[in-house]
Amino acid sequence: MEAKRTFFNLPEEKREKIIKAALEEFASKGWKGASVNSIVARAGIAKGSLYQYFRDKRSLFLFLFDKAVGVAKETLKRVKRQTAEKPLRERLRESLLAGVDFIERHPLLYRIYLQLVFERDVPFRQDLIGRLRVLSFDYILSLLEEALKRGEVREGLDLKAAAFLIDAVMERFLQLQAFPHLAPGWSPKGREEVEQRVEELVDLIEKGVRP
Amino acid sequence: MEAKRTFFNLPEEKREKIIKAALEEFASKGWKGASVNSIVARAGIAKGSLYQYFRDKRSLFLFLFDKAVGVAKETLKRVKRQTAEKPLRERLRESLLAGVDFIERHPLLYRIYLQLVFERDVPFRQDLIGRLRVLSFDYILSLLEEALKRGEVREGLDLKAAAFLIDAVMERFLQLQAFPHLAPGWSPKGREEVEQRVEELVDLIEKGVRP
Repeated sequence: MEAKRTFFNLPEEKREKIIKAALEEFASKGWKGASVNSIVARAGIAKGSLYQYFRDKRSLFLFLFDKAVGVAKETLKRVKRQTAEKPLRERLRESLLAGVDFIERHPLLYRIYLQLVFERDVPFRQDLIGRLRVLSFDYILSLLEEALKRGEVREGLDLKAAAFLIDAVMERFLQLQAFPHLAPGWSPKGREEVEQRVEELVDLIEKGVRP
Repeated sequence: MEAKRTFFNLPEEKREKIIKAALEEFASKGWKGASVNSIVARAGIAKGSLYQYFRDKRSLFLFLFDKAVGVAKETLKRVKRQTAEKPLRERLRESLLAGVDFIERHPLLYRIYLQLVFERDVPFRQDLIGRLRVLSFDYILSLLEEALKRGEVREGLDLKAAAFLIDAVMERFLQLQAFPHLAPGWSPKGREEVEQRVEELVDLIEKGVRP
């Protein structure tokens, strides 16, 4: 737990204000550029108060990161539950669209994630990115395992290789939402094109793994 | 052309020494951290001389980048030519292995590329990464187009979607060579495992696109 108990004793409104200020600061300036001074100014609180809630900038960042991972985990769990009876193809499609929606609903969290991926000099970067990749990899692997039991995936398929492929494609597709220049001439514009592209990718994947 | 004519008038040995010094400096410290002072110290030349060859740090970096893109282009062309008569599956396999070999033979160049991908604050970063992505995307697209003509790919397949998928998988696989934690428990150790993983990925891709 990276926040002190005093933080959880605050009224929810004040907690949200501090979280919002910190998210905005880290999203716009990255881990290294963000300053506690700016965060307290954004939140309209005294610097001394912030240190009553978090030991330092690092603790605050890790607290936000944990929160974000929690939201991502909940999202994946929900999609998994809601699509439990559907074929693999549908499950992948809805997972990918849930990712797009997540980015739209939490643009600051996604920006912080990209900052982390693209920023040097964050001492704990590899651990954090590693945690997210394991989360995503394991989620996809679990969908594949269930699909194998139902006979939707061919016997003898290397599930980890398939999970690796799907994870790589999904992540790159999500990155396109922020960096369309990663696939010039193919990056989707607008929801309709997003759904079309997702359909095409899922089709390729499903044909690759089916019996 | 980012180097001045004076640079090309130097004896090859001296040119190579300067290039090596600059590669080492950028690879170890990134674009922002690298200093012209360290580069001239590594190369054993006077600072004033370096400015006779390159206008500034940026020009020197862009010169190295162009050189690297040139080597990458040559590599892709060679693989394309050498595998011209082979089926798509083989061509993808050899392209991916050529990427692994390229990284092994040019570790500094690959480190500079990763620095660029993972470093904020490089003013021209998006352009440079974009250039490399287009290079890779177009290469894969051309393999798919040839495969389509030969009937190895199903009619109606969205070639750009397939190129996007293959490009994403290839790049992530190459990144694993430097960051095994991106796929814990699956990252290959040693050449034999690399070849095995490549085989598995290419198999998934080929099944996804074939008629």
